[in-house]
Amino acid sequence: MSTARPLGVGLLGLGVVGSAVAEALVAGRGQLAGEGARPLVLKRALVRDLIRPRLVTLPDGVVTTDPAAVIDDPQIGVIVEVMGGEQPAFDYLSRAIDGGKHVVTANKEVLCKKGDALFAHAAKRGVRLLHEASVGGGIPIIGPLSSDLLANQINSIRAIINGTTNYILTKMANERASFDQVLKEAQALGYAEADPTADVDGWDAAYKLSVLTRVAFGVSAPLDAIHREGIRGLETQEFRYAATLGYTIKLLAAARREQGGVLVRVHPALIPNSVPMAKVDGVLNVVEVEGDLVGPLWFQGRGAGPKPTASAVMGDLLRIARGAEIRKNARASRPAPALQLVSMDAHECKYYFRLVCKDRPGVLAQIAGILGRLQISIASVIQMDTNPDRREADLVIMTHPSVEKSVQQAVREIRDLGVVARVAAVLRVEGY
Amino acid sequence: MSTARPLGVGLLGLGVVGSAVAEALVAGRGQLAGEGARPLVLKRALVRDLIRPRLVTLPDGVVTTDPAAVIDDPQIGVIVEVMGGEQPAFDYLSRAIDGGKHVVTANKEVLCKKGDALFAHAAKRGVRLLHEASVGGGIPIIGPLSSDLLANQINSIRAIINGTTNYILTKMANERASFDQVLKEAQALGYAEADPTADVDGWDAAYKLSVLTRVAFGVSAPLDAIHREGIRGLETQEFRYAATLGYTIKLLAAARREQGGVLVRVHPALIPNSVPMAKVDGVLNVVEVEGDLVGPLWFQGRGAGPKPTASAVMGDLLRIARGAEIRKNARASRPAPALQLVSMDAHECKYYFRLVCKDRPGVLAQIAGILGRLQISIASVIQMDTNPDRREADLVIMTHPSVEKSVQQAVREIRDLGVVARVAAVLRVEGY
Repeated sequence: MSTARPLGVGLLGLGVVGSAVAEALVAGRGQLAGEGARPLVLKRALVRDLIRPRLVTLPDGVVTTDPAAVIDDPQIGVIVEVMGGEQPAFDYLSRAIDGGKHVVTANKEVLCKKGDALFAHAAKRGVRLLHEASVGGGIPIIGPLSSDLLANQINSIRAIINGTTNYILTKMANERASFDQVLKEAQALGYAEADPTADVDGWDAAYKLSVLTRVAFGVSAPLDAIHREGIRGLETQEFRYAATLGYTIKLLAAARREQGGVLVRVHPALIPNSVPMAKVDGVLNVVEVEGDLVGPLWFQGRGAGPKPTASAVMGDLLRIARGAEIRKNARASRPAPALQLVSMDAHECKYYFRLVCKDRPGVLAQIAGILGRLQISIASVIQMDTNPDRREADLVIMTHPSVEKSVQQAVREIRDLGVVARVAAVLRVEGY
Repeated sequence: MSTARPLGVGLLGLGVVGSAVAEALVAGRGQLAGEGARPLVLKRALVRDLIRPRLVTLPDGVVTTDPAAVIDDPQIGVIVEVMGGEQPAFDYLSRAIDGGKHVVTANKEVLCKKGDALFAHAAKRGVRLLHEASVGGGIPIIGPLSSDLLANQINSIRAIINGTTNYILTKMANERASFDQVLKEAQALGYAEADPTADVDGWDAAYKLSVLTRVAFGVSAPLDAIHREGIRGLETQEFRYAATLGYTIKLLAAARREQGGVLVRVHPALIPNSVPMAKVDGVLNVVEVEGDLVGPLWFQGRGAGPKPTASAVMGDLLRIARGAEIRKNARASRPAPALQLVSMDAHECKYYFRLVCKDRPGVLAQIAGILGRLQISIASVIQMDTNPDRREADLVIMTHPSVEKSVQQAVREIRDLGVVARVAAVLRVEGY
């Protein structure tokens, strides 16, 4: 048993994740840092409603509805924030840091939106702001990037980091069901929230990618600098054509050194079935990291859930209990010049188009003319008469690597063609 | 630029890995720990022969053939040992620890054979003994187990951690070539050493597994407590039958809580093709970890090579430069009772047998009789007349989960049957 003086923990939020953290602390996992470390003791837990039934039984007097009773308690040395959302989380974290408390958070949204202020504040006050749980549930990724891989220049991060969309995409691919239908099922099973916007429109993945970008590249990636597309507009046809062409559709979160900066993007992508990422199904998360010394690395696991998230929170708490010094973002404080974020316009990759065309002579010639003029080279074409009554056909075009800006220009021009009923999908191909 | 005083590094060994570490230090990667950390400076490097050509150009006076000039240099605060082997590495590491220097080693053999003494010595002297590079090249695994996952009880580690054997097994499976032939090719390509014993007989995997077992379970796993079988005896037929049955053969290194202790084993195993581990081919390494909170995790990357290994060594050096306190093995110093290593006898799994039988009536009855009496239940049987001239047939039996001790007894009894020419293979099935 440790003889060091206990370190009081204050918990902000006692939902499923907060309860799992509380349970871990009550079960004595706060002593697992071993000899010489300070044993962690849960002192207070902030809840919204005192009489709501709890998932965990806590000693009398621990639960409170008064934020100050947690944040300002002098017996508490570290605050764990698992409420989520920008506010009041930001205010609470700021006040805790002001009071000289270390903070551990699972909150990707507040880190994305207020990370600059929070990290600067924590550095100034000499306290730690740890957040392993903010990305990938219990998968160790912030730790490895901050510490184990510190000698590497990170060149690329590619990840599947939103379990809800991955579950939906896996179901849509396997069952050829519509987005709306699968979303409803996912909501019934608790895999998607009543308001699914944060997940299906790519916000959650963008928050997490912003966090990863800060740790891996030492740069701040605000939300408006991240190219973000969700999965809401995907139709079942895309899954059928993708399968025919040997691809799987995933919501990809990627940050890569390009054009002398870092390009940060979240969008659905076609991944070749031969690439391992195509096989990461359901609620699994994966983060692929490429460092200049280590080469490609692969971190995979359950990306969400109370226990995996509690594993990450507890890992950070035990780091603090051991006194391990990860006070500053080493990559951000390096002498090298800061990287710039670069625009999606410059991105280059293969593209998949599906155009719903009127079945008239010369359609392909007009489309190919636009693409050719914009230096977009066609790799393959599939034409399928899908609606003979209305004389409409699907035209699926795969391109050779092309520049995003030209592709967007092509899409505008194609949309204006009288022979094209609609541009049903423009998807990027990744990992070829 | 850091204003902290430099931390001198002494390098023991300047082969391919040592040269990659030296190059990283000379290139300034020793300053990547950021603000407040001590910049690492290469002071001396021990070589066997001064006039041999080097892979890296070092400043005058750095290279020496005198161990004392490195180990006893008061300007050196941390010793990096990348010589390999038990001796003189153990003596050098001991002397460095005695002198109050931190040590970083990539040497799995000395950690397996002398780990108890080295870790105790380092703890007593208050110096750090870090060794991320000893397992899995640059894949962060020691760090995550020691720190990020500390709140978990680790229940299982399953790994492919020897690139040479994985390369050989992948080639044997793909090309149906014999072990001897593939080994020769691997030697010509530099993937296998002139004396391949350490790799093909499972020693290297056992050293690494011993290191993982210490970190994951907090117990010392000496070589004689590890069940170890190599791949030398595998015949091409096994790859053919395994493929027919839907399996891939891998050299598995596994440590798992069983029977109230930990069972530690290295042996070839049949892995179902549907399991991701079956797809980890060539020189890739993978470590699967199962923690009680986090669930299953997957760490994959290049398991060897100078740059990946240098990535891990530099990660440890930067940890020391930052003053991060990972002085003790937290798992070993926990209040929980120490785990015992349990014998392979108690292990239970499905088994694959190939028996070369004389083609006579009643053969299967005799074999089935032995298996039945020993409570080994047959799941499937394939009989193939392989050598009609000699009237011999291959009998391939897959069992339901059975106990190792009974299986070994069955093998002895089957061997004594007059109708069995030889027991060609007894392989365990994993991950079903």
